Amino acid sequence: MLKWEPIEGSLATPQGFRGAAVAAGIKKVAGALDLALIVSDAPETTAAGLFTTNLAAAAPVILCRKHLAAQRGRVRAVIVNSGNANACTGRPGAKAAEATATAVANLFGLLPHQVLVASTGVIGVPLKLDLILAKLPDLKENLSVENADAVARAIMTTDTVPKSVVLRSKMAGKPVHLAGIAKGSGMIHPRMATMLSFITTDAAIPPRDLQRMLRAAANVSFNSVTVDGDTSTNDTLVALASGWAGVSVRQHSAQGKHFLGGLTQLCETLARMIAKDGEGAGKLVTVEVHGARRPSDAERIARAIANSPLVKTAIAGSDPNWGRIICAAGYSDAKFDPTKVDIRINDFVLCRNGLDAGFDEAAAKRELDAKELTLRLDLHQGKASARMWTCDLTHAYIDINASYRT
Amino acid sequence: MLKWEPIEGSLATPQGFRGAAVAAGIKKVAGALDLALIVSDAPETTAAGLFTTNLAAAAPVILCRKHLAAQRGRVRAVIVNSGNANACTGRPGAKAAEATATAVANLFGLLPHQVLVASTGVIGVPLKLDLILAKLPDLKENLSVENADAVARAIMTTDTVPKSVVLRSKMAGKPVHLAGIAKGSGMIHPRMATMLSFITTDAAIPPRDLQRMLRAAANVSFNSVTVDGDTSTNDTLVALASGWAGVSVRQHSAQGKHFLGGLTQLCETLARMIAKDGEGAGKLVTVEVHGARRPSDAERIARAIANSPLVKTAIAGSDPNWGRIICAAGYSDAKFDPTKVDIRINDFVLCRNGLDAGFDEAAAKRELDAKELTLRLDLHQGKASARMWTCDLTHAYIDINASYRT
Repeated sequence: MLKWEPIEGSLATPQGFRGAAVAAGIKKVAGALDLALIVSDAPETTAAGLFTTNLAAAAPVILCRKHLAAQRGRVRAVIVNSGNANACTGRPGAKAAEATATAVANLFGLLPHQVLVASTGVIGVPLKLDLILAKLPDLKENLSVENADAVARAIMTTDTVPKSVVLRSKMAGKPVHLAGIAKGSGMIHPRMATMLSFITTDAAIPPRDLQRMLRAAANVSFNSVTVDGDTSTNDTLVALASGWAGVSVRQHSAQGKHFLGGLTQLCETLARMIAKDGEGAGKLVTVEVHGARRPSDAERIARAIANSPLVKTAIAGSDPNWGRIICAAGYSDAKFDPTKVDIRINDFVLCRNGLDAGFDEAAAKRELDAKELTLRLDLHQGKASARMWTCDLTHAYIDINASYRT
Repeated sequence: MLKWEPIEGSLATPQGFRGAAVAAGIKKVAGALDLALIVSDAPETTAAGLFTTNLAAAAPVILCRKHLAAQRGRVRAVIVNSGNANACTGRPGAKAAEATATAVANLFGLLPHQVLVASTGVIGVPLKLDLILAKLPDLKENLSVENADAVARAIMTTDTVPKSVVLRSKMAGKPVHLAGIAKGSGMIHPRMATMLSFITTDAAIPPRDLQRMLRAAANVSFNSVTVDGDTSTNDTLVALASGWAGVSVRQHSAQGKHFLGGLTQLCETLARMIAKDGEGAGKLVTVEVHGARRPSDAERIARAIANSPLVKTAIAGSDPNWGRIICAAGYSDAKFDPTKVDIRINDFVLCRNGLDAGFDEAAAKRELDAKELTLRLDLHQGKASARMWTCDLTHAYIDINASYRT
């Protein structure tokens, strides 16, 4: 079996999918893409989804859960808008999401339950349904393999770059594709993929297998990224499998293992892109914790460090302030012995056995000046490890968020 | 019984105490006060303490716990340095703390266990014991009621103002005093009083009663303040009671109730001062949650809101982004119905029943422009409530913390 290799493409590179995006006037900037549609032409398409754990889940999140359950994972289309989260919008918000799904369904001769809806943007502002309904005919007309490219741009909010990955492999002698797009980049915290992300594949996968593999891949990717510790109301991760590659995949098989490897690679790449493009981020920081007694200890420590404003501002300033790192580990509720901890930036040792390693300040600063760096803790207590991605905390985060809404 | 009224004074306003502060050269700025001593002349002085829950507790924290336990709450002096936290400093750090206590004890004919030590400043840098030992004779010579004033300045790090409160009341016809000082202002998060704070009183209180009342007062004050969610390695709250007012206080008595009222008032005032002087803070924000089903639900919601970087940056920018507030409540793990929530800034309603209240944008901005404001949630689910103090998140926080160490 071959590896999964990155190739150029879009959500429509996997066979069976088409996409389109238009400017519907939901975003304030005139002409900005803010409405997108992904459709599968394969009647046997399966789907899986993971959603925010936020109690104040947005209307489209509630709709997606309902439709996936009602359809037992067999849906055909996803419609997404940016510029408005349709969260905290009450009954009118729920009705707007339902009316959107119904209108898309009517356009393609589907059942309303075969359509998923996702939204991202400002919370608490009524969504103008008319803007969406008026553009559905345009969207349908523009649907194509080529136009699917624009979908990654249409779901952006404060993201500075579109995030898209396409992978190809061979299974049973046939080419199989996996494609994914995502948007960040604030309100990003791992309790379920804290963003919008859509994944397509032309493998044939039963819904239950797809759901389980999606969860496994998300746990080590989207659920391991944090920008600001805020879990959004709208987090949505949806995967669609058309089956048109003619390759059948079950979770517990060699094919399943290979597919899960590709799915994980795809999700990890997108997750890293989200952290790197975190609001105001100047640096992508990978936090690795090794040698913990239990996986939960490793994860708690990695998460506390990745979320610490003091660690993140020190990294922004290239200050090798390892004391803040050990401090964050210390309040993480994990069990470990602070006097055994080693701390490195990349391979550069800052702290050994919980003490200052007597490093060269200028050399440490150079390591921290890099645009991508790894902050590594070795606890020397056991064999468990964990990894998180985060970004530094800069002035730009404040600029973006002090007046996001207005 | 009279109320507790604020008066001018210092830690030595309660009878029996003297204080002094000197510049020992621990801070980088030449001539900056960085070493202070508080001594009680009353042999029967009792003490109580609360300390950080951080696993990487600093050497002086470990020493304080040991000395208070060994002495069953009967100590006579506290020596404090700023500029170096003596945390993550290994055996040499522990020895430096012990040697400091022993030297102070020798100077005053006390047992080493009768001396407490506290430190604040950079983590992971060896503490220069010589600098401290060299200044002890000076400190002793300068000890006076008048010089106790300087102690509040000597414990400052990134604080912009010294924080000191003195209260007076009458109990059993006699004047009784309570005095407290505190330092913030980063690495502030409520899992035990996240700072240094020292309290003196001339009431006579058995150690166990003092400990219990201190915990009760801290829970609704220091443990309800957050600046950045980072729990420090050095948090220390120590109270000393000289007994020289000639008024005996037990926890479960009318006197105890009155004293606890004063102690709580003192701690709350200091806690608000810490939040207001949070690193880079422009505004003091009181988060109030009412109508929760359980106290833990109210507290979780208040804490999540007070810690949310998105809420804090919106407040910095005077952006009435109530969606972020309800979002933070939603991921707090508390149980509530988002469609019943009302949100106010002071008395100004932003959100009613989980929906936009249709407010005037300019008027909302004016409310948010105030230097002190209350963000109030009414859940309409029950009778429990909670309160937290926090500050906005500004550019100055980043400036201060991007190069704190270097």
